[in-house]
Amino acid sequence: MAKVAPLSGFPEWLPAERIVEQHFLDVIRRTFELHGFANIETRAVEPTERLLGKGGDTDKEIYGVTRLAARGAPESAEADLGLHFDLTVPFARYTLEHAGKLTFPFRRYQIQKVWRGERPQDGRFREFTQADIDIIDAGELPFHYEVELPLVLADVFAELPVGPFRIQVNNRRIPEGFYRGLGLKDVNGTLRIVDKLDKVGPDAVAGMLEEAGCSASQARACLALAQVSATDSSFVDRVNALGVSDPVLEEGLTQLAAVMDAAGEHAPGLLVADLKVARGLDYYTGTVYETQLVGHESYGSVCSGGRYDALASDGKTTYPGVGISIGVSRLLARLMPGLQASRATPTAVLVSLAADTDRTAAMRVAAALRARGIPAEVAPSAAKFGKQIRFADRRGIPFVWFPGRVGPDGDVLADQVKDIRTGEQVAADLDAWCPPDADRWPTVRTRE
Amino acid sequence: MAKVAPLSGFPEWLPAERIVEQHFLDVIRRTFELHGFANIETRAVEPTERLLGKGGDTDKEIYGVTRLAARGAPESAEADLGLHFDLTVPFARYTLEHAGKLTFPFRRYQIQKVWRGERPQDGRFREFTQADIDIIDAGELPFHYEVELPLVLADVFAELPVGPFRIQVNNRRIPEGFYRGLGLKDVNGTLRIVDKLDKVGPDAVAGMLEEAGCSASQARACLALAQVSATDSSFVDRVNALGVSDPVLEEGLTQLAAVMDAAGEHAPGLLVADLKVARGLDYYTGTVYETQLVGHESYGSVCSGGRYDALASDGKTTYPGVGISIGVSRLLARLMPGLQASRATPTAVLVSLAADTDRTAAMRVAAALRARGIPAEVAPSAAKFGKQIRFADRRGIPFVWFPGRVGPDGDVLADQVKDIRTGEQVAADLDAWCPPDADRWPTVRTRE
Repeated sequence: MAKVAPLSGFPEWLPAERIVEQHFLDVIRRTFELHGFANIETRAVEPTERLLGKGGDTDKEIYGVTRLAARGAPESAEADLGLHFDLTVPFARYTLEHAGKLTFPFRRYQIQKVWRGERPQDGRFREFTQADIDIIDAGELPFHYEVELPLVLADVFAELPVGPFRIQVNNRRIPEGFYRGLGLKDVNGTLRIVDKLDKVGPDAVAGMLEEAGCSASQARACLALAQVSATDSSFVDRVNALGVSDPVLEEGLTQLAAVMDAAGEHAPGLLVADLKVARGLDYYTGTVYETQLVGHESYGSVCSGGRYDALASDGKTTYPGVGISIGVSRLLARLMPGLQASRATPTAVLVSLAADTDRTAAMRVAAALRARGIPAEVAPSAAKFGKQIRFADRRGIPFVWFPGRVGPDGDVLADQVKDIRTGEQVAADLDAWCPPDADRWPTVRTRE
Repeated sequence: MAKVAPLSGFPEWLPAERIVEQHFLDVIRRTFELHGFANIETRAVEPTERLLGKGGDTDKEIYGVTRLAARGAPESAEADLGLHFDLTVPFARYTLEHAGKLTFPFRRYQIQKVWRGERPQDGRFREFTQADIDIIDAGELPFHYEVELPLVLADVFAELPVGPFRIQVNNRRIPEGFYRGLGLKDVNGTLRIVDKLDKVGPDAVAGMLEEAGCSASQARACLALAQVSATDSSFVDRVNALGVSDPVLEEGLTQLAAVMDAAGEHAPGLLVADLKVARGLDYYTGTVYETQLVGHESYGSVCSGGRYDALASDGKTTYPGVGISIGVSRLLARLMPGLQASRATPTAVLVSLAADTDRTAAMRVAAALRARGIPAEVAPSAAKFGKQIRFADRRGIPFVWFPGRVGPDGDVLADQVKDIRTGEQVAADLDAWCPPDADRWPTVRTRE
């Protein structure tokens, strides 16, 4: 057997870190459900032909899956399968497959692992967890869902110890209409170049635009648009002042203003209209979203999404949708060093053992605590009490229970419980004692 | 794009079914945590050389994973990876990899998908969810954990709508010692033959044993042992009456009696000592567990496990463990037809819209409900109220909220809420109204 070594790009958490991750996932789930999103899980694999060509240049990233026994077989009757690289493509397939049994508009959330074979780097993994919400409709999807989705995200982030954050919003119609109004032909090519603005700076982008056939003044206009940002709908006047007129541009400005107005009402200060946000994926057609942690801007977006119109279609019906995906692993990779769980185990109470023959009685004590919702376990052996307390201390278990017993003189000793952090030990009634609420389950806090 | 068709062996739940599954997973998680098990997740892939040869004849079942871009490349620098086929082998690897950062005995639970390339059939899938608990120690693992584990499982099952069930327990030392005491050489071969008892019946097993070299009286004795079962420790006398003497057999009988005595105290009536239970996997060395749903015996075990001594070793330290795995997908595949969720969405309240211009006010109502932990969503459009009520009804949303407004004569109309099941509609205070506890979140019940 080869030495056990970590596998690059496939991170794993230790138990205390997993408690932090569980806290994030619990908050995400609860917030999504409060907003009426129903959960689904899709299988990990899709036919590779369904994965290829969705989401642009992803074919190099897809992991193929083959039974070892079928490897090298010249012709296999089995489907050619790959691991999904996001949750949007599987959700589109799920919607088509089960459309007759779903009710539309369909609000769903999905929290699962996804896999990409790309080179691992800071915050980029080969296996990672995403938490997605999407609203998909049959035929037409009302615009107001594009307004609603970033507000759900703002609610999630407001409940998590992520520090200040910024949800950046744009509408694909704005650059598209603007570029068309400027007389540019290659809208997507221009988008892709302007998307590099944060990485290479305005001069390099201007140069690339001119190489691609823009005039100097067209390149200047593209850059001016990309540099517009605002925390309210004041961006509309600033764009109009650039003097480009186009009906698609107008529609985009109106829609983005509606998103910003709703944000001002329901999540003041959390959204920024940022007209350089483009999102790489070609399938977005309306509002697009990115999210930055303030102070970690160079880390890039930790949750992104947008409106898509043509991802799911069975030839008869099209199912347009809008979605946002939280990069849970990516977010935690950055935040974990600053967070800690109050302990590395769910156990709140360790029931001590005076003698190994007391195990049955100790198990009865633990069962009574659990029946009242208090996580408890029995000490592994009847070691000296000091050793049992150290056992609890190493795991962060806050309380040690000493079951009552009949003393050497026939006197009955009551149950006692010790808070090992303060050393305080008091008589306790097994049917009534509770730990403080903050100690019942592990909690997550910011590291000092 | 090919037609969307289900993939055999990769089942997916509809939203209402997923609510049932989530209920099962929530109960499992909470019970495991009440017993002090810490959660971890391991990556989906392991080096194939680690997967092969663990758990016996599984090589044909393993799914290999390769980047599509690396397919057909003559030499790849990348590790040869496969999807895990259980959670025990990855847990053993995790323990070795992170041993320096874990505290022992380590109690962990793990709820994840696993993959096996075997032929799909009733209750057997290619992708399925398992929920495992294991206790692993460094060097020595005390026997009492073998007593504790089935009690955790009994607690889980007692909280779930699974109907009557039976946890069958045996100890590998009993057949091993017994076969040795009988003078048989091939203990594992004999185990494998006797394991077929339920499938082929006693006459066929006797024939196979004799073909494998047993005398007729040895075969009779093996069958007599396999037919012993008891709900308490009375099995000891019945085995002793078979007249075979062996120290390993004695040890096994003592241990199994201890398991049954603890069960009598903590989970009366739920455990059965069943001496034919063998578990296929070669790595079990002590107590072994299987679980049957009463009335579904031919479906086989829905959760299984046992004691293993040599699964994790780094050459210096060995980490013996004991574990039980709940086959969540397998269990639900059988039970789902008899279960139903109270609704197909988390939403408890649909906020209706009198006019599309009321959306902002309606979003404010929904936000106020959510802030008090009540799942709410706003109607998709300002359709006639009858249509909005049908929208709620189709999803099982129990309440429709009518936001108050200023009437045509300047009179203020109060907020009202309608229980669409009874038709009752009452004035409601947005800051105080609550749905009955049973309606706040979806619930799961047995179908009538």
